[in-house]
Amino acid sequence: MPDKELKKHMPKAERKEYTYNKLKVLGQDIIDDVIKNKIPTLSVPSRGTGNIHYDADKRYYVLGDRHSRRSMGNVKQIRKLGQMVCTANFCKDLVQREKTATIREMYYISEGWGVEFNTQQESNTVGEDLEVMLGATREELGLMPEEDGASVYGNITLMDDDVEINALRAGKSGYTISPTIDDVDFIDYDVDRVIAVETMGMFHRMVQENAYDKFNTLIVGLKGQAARATRRFLKRVNEELGLPVYICNDGDPWGFHIGQVIISGSAKLAHVNHELATPDAQFMGVTASDIIKYDLPTDPLKDVDVMRLKELSQDPRYKTDFWQNEIKKMLKLGKKAEQQSFSKYGLEYVIDEYFPTKLREMGAEI
Amino acid sequence: MPDKELKKHMPKAERKEYTYNKLKVLGQDIIDDVIKNKIPTLSVPSRGTGNIHYDADKRYYVLGDRHSRRSMGNVKQIRKLGQMVCTANFCKDLVQREKTATIREMYYISEGWGVEFNTQQESNTVGEDLEVMLGATREELGLMPEEDGASVYGNITLMDDDVEINALRAGKSGYTISPTIDDVDFIDYDVDRVIAVETMGMFHRMVQENAYDKFNTLIVGLKGQAARATRRFLKRVNEELGLPVYICNDGDPWGFHIGQVIISGSAKLAHVNHELATPDAQFMGVTASDIIKYDLPTDPLKDVDVMRLKELSQDPRYKTDFWQNEIKKMLKLGKKAEQQSFSKYGLEYVIDEYFPTKLREMGAEI
Repeated sequence: MPDKELKKHMPKAERKEYTYNKLKVLGQDIIDDVIKNKIPTLSVPSRGTGNIHYDADKRYYVLGDRHSRRSMGNVKQIRKLGQMVCTANFCKDLVQREKTATIREMYYISEGWGVEFNTQQESNTVGEDLEVMLGATREELGLMPEEDGASVYGNITLMDDDVEINALRAGKSGYTISPTIDDVDFIDYDVDRVIAVETMGMFHRMVQENAYDKFNTLIVGLKGQAARATRRFLKRVNEELGLPVYICNDGDPWGFHIGQVIISGSAKLAHVNHELATPDAQFMGVTASDIIKYDLPTDPLKDVDVMRLKELSQDPRYKTDFWQNEIKKMLKLGKKAEQQSFSKYGLEYVIDEYFPTKLREMGAEI
Repeated sequence: MPDKELKKHMPKAERKEYTYNKLKVLGQDIIDDVIKNKIPTLSVPSRGTGNIHYDADKRYYVLGDRHSRRSMGNVKQIRKLGQMVCTANFCKDLVQREKTATIREMYYISEGWGVEFNTQQESNTVGEDLEVMLGATREELGLMPEEDGASVYGNITLMDDDVEINALRAGKSGYTISPTIDDVDFIDYDVDRVIAVETMGMFHRMVQENAYDKFNTLIVGLKGQAARATRRFLKRVNEELGLPVYICNDGDPWGFHIGQVIISGSAKLAHVNHELATPDAQFMGVTASDIIKYDLPTDPLKDVDVMRLKELSQDPRYKTDFWQNEIKKMLKLGKKAEQQSFSKYGLEYVIDEYFPTKLREMGAEI
């Protein structure tokens, strides 16, 4: 069983120990080399574009087999190698103490390590190098992003440490997915599906119109590009609870791609897409066809929108007939529309008409 | 008793009826004019800079007495007046149906009104005109911003409709202040103070280090510039519950001003500062003095930082000795620092050393 499969079935405490040992072994190997009078080296999977492939079976980007070696014997590589070892040591300490640090905090803490990071970008990259080398997510290493994830409203009960939370009873803005979402257990739920929307404006509309009840759904407010924690949450409800996930965004290339990154992951994070992508999630809209069918208020496509649409049409994640048609249609139409533009027909229209029609078209029983 | 004082003491349902009647009267006055063969006019308090004054007693910006008239007899004003009446009518409907709409949704809905808004900026301005004319906040009129407010963690119990929420039990990211925060009642609390911090990175650090318990405090994660809902929440906990509010932001002119807008309100919203400003809230840091005292990691001030600091030094809200000294010191130092930079001394330092020292200096008993 490969590492990533093995880890999936481990209880939380065991997973932590597993990560801790990986970090420890990294350091021990270097010490062993030194004792044996060998020059310490680390083998790091390459994250260059040449080593990133779209896997049609898995339906997301994966990393190939190419590795590069970083050696203490190479003057150019010493600093980078020192940074990796110090970062790994810091993470080992975090995992052991059951703490987390933001990547910003780590950047400041590294001041004392004597392996100076010139920018936070540099320390972030080393964090990603460790992810890929150890086959552990940055979050498993204790390194957290600054931002929280999406808001969730609907009938699901979660256990976070010893606190039980029902996402119908956490306030009108719902339960906020925190960066430590993998430490949260799903206790109970009574919904048939998940609908994720791009804006909090639409989230609040759905809450106000009782969409969670009408469609027996969780409502997820993405707040634009989905944070890693949000993607973990959507993957987990889809795969652990078997809930279908629908994504409704603005009808423009940026809205398409926010959906697509949830579904198929990103090339940049090819090494963790198996933890982040939800290939069975479905894009619901807003599509170019919707803009025409519902005669939505639109804005003209800007040059940058047209350019982005043409890029997407060449992207392997958009090679299906559905996407090729919708991209062509939008380019021909020369227009884009926001998800809130349905309110042209009144505040309730999107809940009373658009969502039920769309869900039925996509085969949902509501 | 002036309107704004009167309203403060009204129960929620009565306040809604009060707003509803104000909206109704606005329309009725116009109808009366028409029946009497008079040309309908509306008197709108001026929001020009000449009518905005800093009130040293109240410690925030207020609007003066100047009004301008908008008349149906003036061709140039007809469209604007039509927009105001349609918007007021829409709001009346919202208040009556106990609904809210985002300002974006209203912009789309207005398509059918025949008083075209060219941009959302234009419809937002009309919303603010109504606020100032009726002496009601936009939220009381049912018009909500897109964004949610801050995150709150700590021992406070709120009642939102029929849902009771304790902000220690809403997840690691806490309770999210929603735009409808004024419909929420405070049921119970067991804290001595409120500490608001600029970043969610610092919020999570405080949660992880049990700062809510150590300092018996609510922790509020502002997420940058405080949303209107956040400012309402801070004002309410300060004035209704009598809790002192401390604000800890990045040590740069932008962090200073995020704090200052919470404390003294903004000039742009002079007409609602009495609902938004918390004059007794206190800026805790990070100050230029802190940068020196704690030898924090810094970045050099950019030209735009220097310019902004010089602007602030001329602003009546910064006329105290404290601010004049700190601004001068930062300009002389030529450096700024983020609140997370304390992690140079380890993750826990900010909680174990900085906060307790600062709170004691500011006279808090901890």
